[in-house]
Amino acid sequence: MSVKTIGILLFENVEELDAVGPWEVLSYWTLNHPDDGYEVRMLADTLEPVRAAKGLRMLPDTALADAPPLEVLIYPGGQGTRPRLADPAELDWVREQRASVPLMTSVCTGSLVYAAAGMLAGRPATTHWESLDLLGQLDTSIEVRRDDRFVDDGDLITSSGVSAGIDMALHLVDRLAGRERAIEVRRGIQYDPQPPV
Amino acid sequence: MSVKTIGILLFENVEELDAVGPWEVLSYWTLNHPDDGYEVRMLADTLEPVRAAKGLRMLPDTALADAPPLEVLIYPGGQGTRPRLADPAELDWVREQRASVPLMTSVCTGSLVYAAAGMLAGRPATTHWESLDLLGQLDTSIEVRRDDRFVDDGDLITSSGVSAGIDMALHLVDRLAGRERAIEVRRGIQYDPQPPV
Repeated sequence: MSVKTIGILLFENVEELDAVGPWEVLSYWTLNHPDDGYEVRMLADTLEPVRAAKGLRMLPDTALADAPPLEVLIYPGGQGTRPRLADPAELDWVREQRASVPLMTSVCTGSLVYAAAGMLAGRPATTHWESLDLLGQLDTSIEVRRDDRFVDDGDLITSSGVSAGIDMALHLVDRLAGRERAIEVRRGIQYDPQPPV
Repeated sequence: MSVKTIGILLFENVEELDAVGPWEVLSYWTLNHPDDGYEVRMLADTLEPVRAAKGLRMLPDTALADAPPLEVLIYPGGQGTRPRLADPAELDWVREQRASVPLMTSVCTGSLVYAAAGMLAGRPATTHWESLDLLGQLDTSIEVRRDDRFVDDGDLITSSGVSAGIDMALHLVDRLAGRERAIEVRRGIQYDPQPPV
């Protein structure tokens, strides 16, 4: 059985938790259940360290040019999405991915890049609460979901801000490997949140 | 005003979210409010990349030998704590920190290292649910709190598993900079968790 790859995209000024929240959830699953047939990789343009929005430097696993075909792409958010959504080459890349990747997902303002690429036309989607208006402006045909934690629209899943990537990733485990696996991961990372404020 | 340093310790097989959850919360605060007088650094033995438990490689900001005096230490958990809690040199280092660092904190199984160093004697503490028994075995005088998300015992805060570091870090912001700041960070990272399973 060939392994299916879930790729998390790293780029300059990606928000740390947008990427590492899903990484933790998905890697917990794939490493504990290799027979499920999935792997998770951190992808980036090159193998050089990527400096995230709050200053953490992470090393990608795989350069995009060397990545296997993806089953799932996770596009995180962060301030780094702003130059990318205005970069024609990046938007071309996103459209290329859409043509070949069965499940395109985003966390936070990652969906702004999808919107700018025309990928969300006529579809329900969400983003960080501070960017909901911008999402609707980038493509007025988007049905902006202001109150959803994440929006699963089949071959497309978008999430609200930052920490929502953890919830979306648990949903991904549920969808790709079943409820039992998702509950196991939730227990493993002791995800019984109790925000103190 | 001199800046106070919050140090998050990175080490081989540290659990990714144990470190990056608090990093996200605390950096969101310190970078948006530099006048509050705090900074956050990722610390490690050397500046070489650290490979975390699920395979993510992160670059530390500061080698321990070059670190300024810490106001707060955050000791994350992960499989990497197991060799450390049996390493006399590491336990000596923890005891040295305790003698000079006003606030010692841990996430997940980081508290096992504190326990092995004798730092939790006679005190209430917690850890990942799977390690609660081990925590009590490492030092039978510890009052093991099995149901607490985190335990604030003054100059010592311990947290339950993995994702609990996010809640503990929000509590830290509340304690060090006030409720308003903590609420701002919670909103910034849109921390309105909705576990889907």
